Amino acid sequence: MAAKFHPNIRLDLALIHYPVLNRNNEIIGSAVTNLDLHDIARAGRTFGVSNYWVVTADKQQQELAAQITGHWTEGYGGTVNPDRANALSLIRICDSLDTLLAELSDCKPLVVATSASRNVNEGKRISYSELRNKLVQGIPTLLLFGTAWGLAPEIMERVDLTLPSVHGPGEFNHLSVRSAASIILDRLLGTR
Amino acid sequence: MAAKFHPNIRLDLALIHYPVLNRNNEIIGSAVTNLDLHDIARAGRTFGVSNYWVVTADKQQQELAAQITGHWTEGYGGTVNPDRANALSLIRICDSLDTLLAELSDCKPLVVATSASRNVNEGKRISYSELRNKLVQGIPTLLLFGTAWGLAPEIMERVDLTLPSVHGPGEFNHLSVRSAASIILDRLLGTR
Repeated sequence: MAAKFHPNIRLDLALIHYPVLNRNNEIIGSAVTNLDLHDIARAGRTFGVSNYWVVTADKQQQELAAQITGHWTEGYGGTVNPDRANALSLIRICDSLDTLLAELSDCKPLVVATSASRNVNEGKRISYSELRNKLVQGIPTLLLFGTAWGLAPEIMERVDLTLPSVHGPGEFNHLSVRSAASIILDRLLGTR
Repeated sequence: MAAKFHPNIRLDLALIHYPVLNRNNEIIGSAVTNLDLHDIARAGRTFGVSNYWVVTADKQQQELAAQITGHWTEGYGGTVNPDRANALSLIRICDSLDTLLAELSDCKPLVVATSASRNVNEGKRISYSELRNKLVQGIPTLLLFGTAWGLAPEIMERVDLTLPSVHGPGEFNHLSVRSAASIILDRLLGTR
């Protein structure tokens, strides 16, 4: 579903499960969670995202994600809740950022990271309003979200740009990725 | 935690589990869910909310909410994740909106509903920027969120004001309450 008032917008979103960091700053693969699929797909559909990529290197986790998604898009879930089927039909599963970028080679998107850290990738910073302008101009964009303790340095080094962390008036910095993704989509594509 | 730049802000948030509507427009009590407690507490703490009220008339559901919260604030969870303890310490459990308002009788808050419906309570509409101004002026405010298919009419009739629904550029309207609460707090109290 293209955005109604800006028919040129092409925003893809990816939730990365590998490589991400754990609390000890080590590189891990995190587990796919049901609510990350649902909540971020629902927010993605609300704000006109083109695809919601679920990126995990683990074959069993790929199967789990496909099974959950299939229940809601092709199985019984979609019959009782067509809105949920509509949202979860955004989901595409892939094994790595490289595969994802190969899939998007037709549009060569601007790759933009999100991060909960205030100082990461300072040289590549873009503001929410600047990125909103690029989207409205029709520049294809891929927005990356990390699970666990965030995107691994090897991902952060490869991106073109990075959005500032979402924070409130204080120092507390512990939003769920579901909340962060919802807020960031609203900042980029919301109308009020 | 008071908001850093607006020390006068007093915003309480309530997640109502009874009375709410089901898909057939009947009044029900919905079940407390773990992720509603975590995600909304984390967003509440991020944006400087004073209390996150979990409202359910069911005694067993009250006990479940207290047990989950206690694990993270006083039990093992809080030891391994102090940020989570900090967030979940916002949670207060009560049995009805009447009890909640009695607890807040010292500050007599402006009671503001949220809704996913575009046309509900049109005569009581307030914009996000207008409510933000009231908050910055120090007007105590209680923001209500409904679970399931939304707040029952008997709640909507009692509120002072209602925020517009959160929507994107299209017609799709099926955000999780976790996403909606996160976005609304960012619209009211976020800095960027």
